[in-house]
Amino acid sequence: MAGKRDKEEDSGKHPDSKERLEALGKNLLHEINEGNSPKFVTLSRTRSNVLYDTKEGYLTLGNTKEERNFLNVAQSKRFMQTIAIAAKCHKFVTENLHTTIRGLFYQLKFSLEEDVDENIFSEQAESNPLIEDLEVALSLKREDLNLNANRKGVLAGAITVLDTFGNERLEIDCAKQGRSGWAIPSDVDNDIEFVDVKAKYVLVVEKDALWQRLNEDGFWKKENAILITPQGQAARGTRRLIRKLADKGLPVYVFTDSDAWGWYIYWTIKTGSINLAYIGNDVATPEARFLGVTMSDLDKYEFLNKLTIHANDIDLKRAQEMLNYEWIKKHKEWVVELERMIKSKKKLEQDALQGPRLTFVDDYIREKIKNKEYLP
Amino acid sequence: MAGKRDKEEDSGKHPDSKERLEALGKNLLHEINEGNSPKFVTLSRTRSNVLYDTKEGYLTLGNTKEERNFLNVAQSKRFMQTIAIAAKCHKFVTENLHTTIRGLFYQLKFSLEEDVDENIFSEQAESNPLIEDLEVALSLKREDLNLNANRKGVLAGAITVLDTFGNERLEIDCAKQGRSGWAIPSDVDNDIEFVDVKAKYVLVVEKDALWQRLNEDGFWKKENAILITPQGQAARGTRRLIRKLADKGLPVYVFTDSDAWGWYIYWTIKTGSINLAYIGNDVATPEARFLGVTMSDLDKYEFLNKLTIHANDIDLKRAQEMLNYEWIKKHKEWVVELERMIKSKKKLEQDALQGPRLTFVDDYIREKIKNKEYLP
Repeated sequence: MAGKRDKEEDSGKHPDSKERLEALGKNLLHEINEGNSPKFVTLSRTRSNVLYDTKEGYLTLGNTKEERNFLNVAQSKRFMQTIAIAAKCHKFVTENLHTTIRGLFYQLKFSLEEDVDENIFSEQAESNPLIEDLEVALSLKREDLNLNANRKGVLAGAITVLDTFGNERLEIDCAKQGRSGWAIPSDVDNDIEFVDVKAKYVLVVEKDALWQRLNEDGFWKKENAILITPQGQAARGTRRLIRKLADKGLPVYVFTDSDAWGWYIYWTIKTGSINLAYIGNDVATPEARFLGVTMSDLDKYEFLNKLTIHANDIDLKRAQEMLNYEWIKKHKEWVVELERMIKSKKKLEQDALQGPRLTFVDDYIREKIKNKEYLP
Repeated sequence: MAGKRDKEEDSGKHPDSKERLEALGKNLLHEINEGNSPKFVTLSRTRSNVLYDTKEGYLTLGNTKEERNFLNVAQSKRFMQTIAIAAKCHKFVTENLHTTIRGLFYQLKFSLEEDVDENIFSEQAESNPLIEDLEVALSLKREDLNLNANRKGVLAGAITVLDTFGNERLEIDCAKQGRSGWAIPSDVDNDIEFVDVKAKYVLVVEKDALWQRLNEDGFWKKENAILITPQGQAARGTRRLIRKLADKGLPVYVFTDSDAWGWYIYWTIKTGSINLAYIGNDVATPEARFLGVTMSDLDKYEFLNKLTIHANDIDLKRAQEMLNYEWIKKHKEWVVELERMIKSKKKLEQDALQGPRLTFVDDYIREKIKNKEYLP
């Protein structure tokens, strides 16, 4: 039942979420009719079942299964909770209405408390992991079950979005969004398409402030690029969109601070994350390259040496941890970067490139891409 | 020199930032030529000079002045730093390029360190308050000095934005932004106009998740409203935009959680905040009304009693503090709300309105507005 998704085309079409939910229900009924204990099977999402797929280049789940039996005292409550969530998602998909995992939690509290006295879901912390179980068991993302995740991130560039609003089909030209850019939604798969992609590459800039700087300069227009900021750590929707743009054959360059947080943002985009390993296939972009800023920039750009700041304990600890990750330590260039920060106890922000003049950052990026000065 | 701004028209025209900066410089030169110690005068932004203006209904600065003299050992460094910031802002305005207070900090570090050995600005915490001094002294907002603040917030509705991008004048129809909405920028005054406002009122919804819910339902379309979410606490740009929409004669309703954070968001929109008292005139909307959710909703909507959550210590402490604010305690309705939370130790989230059905929240809002069931 559980397994990896195929890469879906950017068709804007829904997967068969409703059918998959109904198949789950029918299967349980069948078990009951056969006199068996109904059970729910998913893949384990514990740390020990999260693996780095060396061939694909991202974090994904192993094959360890997890079963939840109705006729097992230790499992029956969670079994029942999981089925209650599946029933609600079926309702949302049928109604064609979206909510969040918080909205789902309140619906569960409301409807269960009508009939029974016990508080079956007292905390949202109880329902959240069960939603993830359901995503894995059905090989669907929560967005396909009409559950929106937090959204964050903005885009500008020569690309058109075909979005759906009620009965309307809207054409949004991301080259005509001015100072605002187009806000990247939670769900970039269902009822939405990305067409007319004329850009040559994707540039992901950690900070919104620098995105605004580059947008003002018309950087994406001059370079024929798609300019994205995740506004810090990338939300699910933004990661998924980057993956989809890479699927269209566009190179992806990531530009962050040279510190623990910036590196974390990069590696999350590239290899996915432990928490989202269960949808690694959908959200990781192993083709991504790291443009900067790097500790090695200090050799090339003399003035940056005056603009470094002190690395804090979190930076140093995190750099040390990263040296142990197999998917990082295999790259010599990254070992050099990490060791240099640990030794010098200095870090560097992308904002520092505004020191000499506000438009310096434009030239920096252009030169890095032209000379292929990026890290794997 | 320092004083209150007049309400500017929504003309998209720049104020005379460059001229005001130059007048500041010329004035200093004049003092020097006269043989006097040049001085910089601004209004004090200390807590004791922040007042609630009962007539206008917002927090603003009193008349206590603050002087910074060049020939005063205790003041000369800050005097020099302030002038360095003014010089940089003059450069940005002349170049017609924008940055952030972080970008400004790096420029200051870069250029000062070229000539002198001492690190004049070692922390951004040093430059930030001096930028505010300059805003007050020149009766300008930092956005008028080409310094962008963090942006956050999204809008949908029957309103057209005329934005400027390079040499292009862009028309952005906020009724055609689909699931994304129009991202509210940091600066909603310069080179940007809001025209063709056909909406009847403005609804501000605390949470982006609920904004998405209402947007999906086409709530703003059916109601002919402008639907805004500040995505939590409102950023400067979003507060300023709400003020500008109120200036166009639109009623403003705010819809938040019934807890300390939700109330803080409301009162910040309505009366401004202590930190931004120096631009209270620009960002406060005393006309705003509080739509819900309220503790009194528990009497009207029986099911909500099952969906309350425990108020934490911060909520209770904050509610107690609010009972002491003159601009809050003068409203009986608010005293009832606050005391009810303190007594019951319960709070209520706006998301709870999704309990019975996802679209219940639409009816709730509609009814509240129709029956004028809102708090002052």
